[in-house]
Amino acid sequence: MTLILDSTEIKNCVKFNEDLIPIIEDAFKSLSLGKTVMPPILRVDIEKYHGESDVKAAYIEGLDSFAVKVASGFFNNSKLGLPSSNGLMILLDSKTGVIKSVLLDKGYLTDVRTAIAGAIASKYLSKPTSSSVAIIGAGIQAELQLESLTLVRDIKNVNVWARDKSKAHAYIDNVSKKYNFKFNVHDNTEDLVKEVDILITTTPSKKPLIEYSSLPKGIHITAMGSDAEQKNELDPNIIQKCDVYVPDNQNQTMILGELNHALKKKLIPNDKIYNDLGKIIINPELGRKNNDDITVADLTGTGVQDTAIARYAYEIALNKKLGKNVD
Amino acid sequence: MTLILDSTEIKNCVKFNEDLIPIIEDAFKSLSLGKTVMPPILRVDIEKYHGESDVKAAYIEGLDSFAVKVASGFFNNSKLGLPSSNGLMILLDSKTGVIKSVLLDKGYLTDVRTAIAGAIASKYLSKPTSSSVAIIGAGIQAELQLESLTLVRDIKNVNVWARDKSKAHAYIDNVSKKYNFKFNVHDNTEDLVKEVDILITTTPSKKPLIEYSSLPKGIHITAMGSDAEQKNELDPNIIQKCDVYVPDNQNQTMILGELNHALKKKLIPNDKIYNDLGKIIINPELGRKNNDDITVADLTGTGVQDTAIARYAYEIALNKKLGKNVD
Repeated sequence: MTLILDSTEIKNCVKFNEDLIPIIEDAFKSLSLGKTVMPPILRVDIEKYHGESDVKAAYIEGLDSFAVKVASGFFNNSKLGLPSSNGLMILLDSKTGVIKSVLLDKGYLTDVRTAIAGAIASKYLSKPTSSSVAIIGAGIQAELQLESLTLVRDIKNVNVWARDKSKAHAYIDNVSKKYNFKFNVHDNTEDLVKEVDILITTTPSKKPLIEYSSLPKGIHITAMGSDAEQKNELDPNIIQKCDVYVPDNQNQTMILGELNHALKKKLIPNDKIYNDLGKIIINPELGRKNNDDITVADLTGTGVQDTAIARYAYEIALNKKLGKNVD
Repeated sequence: MTLILDSTEIKNCVKFNEDLIPIIEDAFKSLSLGKTVMPPILRVDIEKYHGESDVKAAYIEGLDSFAVKVASGFFNNSKLGLPSSNGLMILLDSKTGVIKSVLLDKGYLTDVRTAIAGAIASKYLSKPTSSSVAIIGAGIQAELQLESLTLVRDIKNVNVWARDKSKAHAYIDNVSKKYNFKFNVHDNTEDLVKEVDILITTTPSKKPLIEYSSLPKGIHITAMGSDAEQKNELDPNIIQKCDVYVPDNQNQTMILGELNHALKKKLIPNDKIYNDLGKIIINPELGRKNNDDITVADLTGTGVQDTAIARYAYEIALNKKLGKNVD
C-alpha cells in the first residue's frame, strides 16, 4: 500500500517552525560525514517551454526510508495563470524499495526545506547580533527565506531589490502584513547592502547582481538562487575574496552553484576543498572567525534535505491519519 | 489535479499485445533522430540491502507529456516474501510541468516496455523464419520476453537454462500452460543454443554466461539483463565478433550494457559508433544482411520507452474513466 498525500494535507502537516532546523541540520551532517548515497541530479530541460524538471534523491544511512523528489520550474506558466514551480516527493522503504508514500506537495516541501537551509546558513555564519537583511528578488523564496531567518535572528530592518520594482513593493505589501519590520525598496544592489548584516539572493539570474566592492565588512551572504550551470547571482570575485565560503555540497556547487563561475574564471584552483555546511554545523568554529569576516553560503539544494523533510511530513501524516492508501 | 492510477487499473489498461510495438518503435525512432531530451540515469545504490533504485526520464519532442520513472530492484525481498521489483511512473505536462498522473504500476509498465523492446529487436534482427529460442534465466522477463517474441515470430521450440535448474522447470510448468511449444531444460548454455535461431538473456549476472564459440551461425541475441556497470551476460568477444551489434542507446550501453565490457577489454575502439535500434527500425537494411549473420541487441532500457508506455496507459485510463483525481 502506498499512502497518497495531497497538497492540503501536506501543508497541514508541515508548518514553518524551528522544529525543522535540527531535522535539516542532521541531513547536512550525514551528507558531510559521507553517510549518504546521493547521486548527481537528473535534469530534463525543455527549452521550447522554458521549463526544467530536476530529480534529486538521497539515502541516509540508518534511516528506514529515502526520498526521490521531482521539482519542476516552467517559467512561461505565469502567462497561463499557473505557478512556475511544481513537484512531488516519493518515499521508498530503504530495505525493500516498496513505495511507502507519494507526497503531492506541488513543490511546497522543496520551498520549505530550501528556506530552512537558508536559516541554518545564517544561524552558523552570520553575526549573532544580525538585525538587518537585504533580499534580492521578490518571489516565494524571498518571502520564505525571510520567514525562516526570523527563526534564528532578531530581524528589524529589511531592504529589498528586485529587477521589477513594482514586484519589490508588492512583496513588502504582502510580507509587512505578517512582520512589523522596517522595510525599504532600493534602486540598486549597491545601496541595498550598504548597512546590512545579511544578504539573501533568491533569483534565477544568469548574470551577477552584486559586486564584491559593494559588500560591507561582516556581511553574511546566503546565495540560494543558483541551482543550474548557467545561473549566477554573485560576482565570482566574492567567492574568491570572502573569508569563509561554505557550499551545501561542493560536488554540486562546483557545477551548479556560485562556485562554478569562480572556477570557470580560474579565480580558484580546481582542487580546493571547502568545509561544507554539514561540517560547519558539526564544528561551528570552522565558520565565522570575527565580526569583520565576509561569509558566503552557496546553496544548490540537496537530496538529503528532501529525504529529511519527506520523512518528517510522512510521520506526521501517519500520526494524524491523513491521506489515502492505494494498492 | 493529478490522476492516481493503481496497479490493478494499470494492468486493466495495458495488455500485452501488438499495438504496443509501434508505440515503442516510435520512441526508439525519436531517440535515434535526436528528437529527445534523455538525461543520464540517476541511481541510488543501497548495498546494505542489496537494493537499487533507478530513475529514468525522457522528453520526446512534440509530445504533450513526458515521464519520470522510478524502478527499484531489492534482491533480498524474496526472503521477505516480496517481489524484488517495484516502481512507479509520473507523467508531467511538457508545457507546464504540472503532474498529470502518478501511475503506481509496481514495475509492471517497465516489465512490459522491456519485453516489447525485445520483440522489436527480434523483429528487425532475427531471421524471419526463426522458430526456436533459447532463454537464459527463469524470472519474470524470461516469461515476458517469450510472450512478447510470439508477437513477431512463429515460435515452436523453447530451450531454457537457469543457474537453479528447478527454477527452469518451474518456469516451463508455468509457461507451458499458456503455450503449446516444445520445451527443453538444458544443463549448460553451450547445448542450450546449439540449434536455435534466437537467444534471449534475462539475468542480472556479473559474469558472462555464454561464449562466442558456442554460438551457431545465424543466431540473433537479445541481451536485456545488463543495465548496470558490473552486470555482464555475454562473453565480450561476442560483441567484437558478431556481424551486427545494435544498442538501444549507445550512451547507455557503453556504461551499463554488454558493450561496456568489450570496451573495458579494449576489444573495440572507444570511438566506434554503432547504429542504434531506432536507426534499424527506420532503415531495416542496416540490420541483418544474410542468414548466417550473428546479430546482437544490447538493451539497457531507456527513458523514451517509459514516456511512451506511460502516455499510452494514461490515455486508456482517461478513456475508461479510471483512477482518482487528487489535488
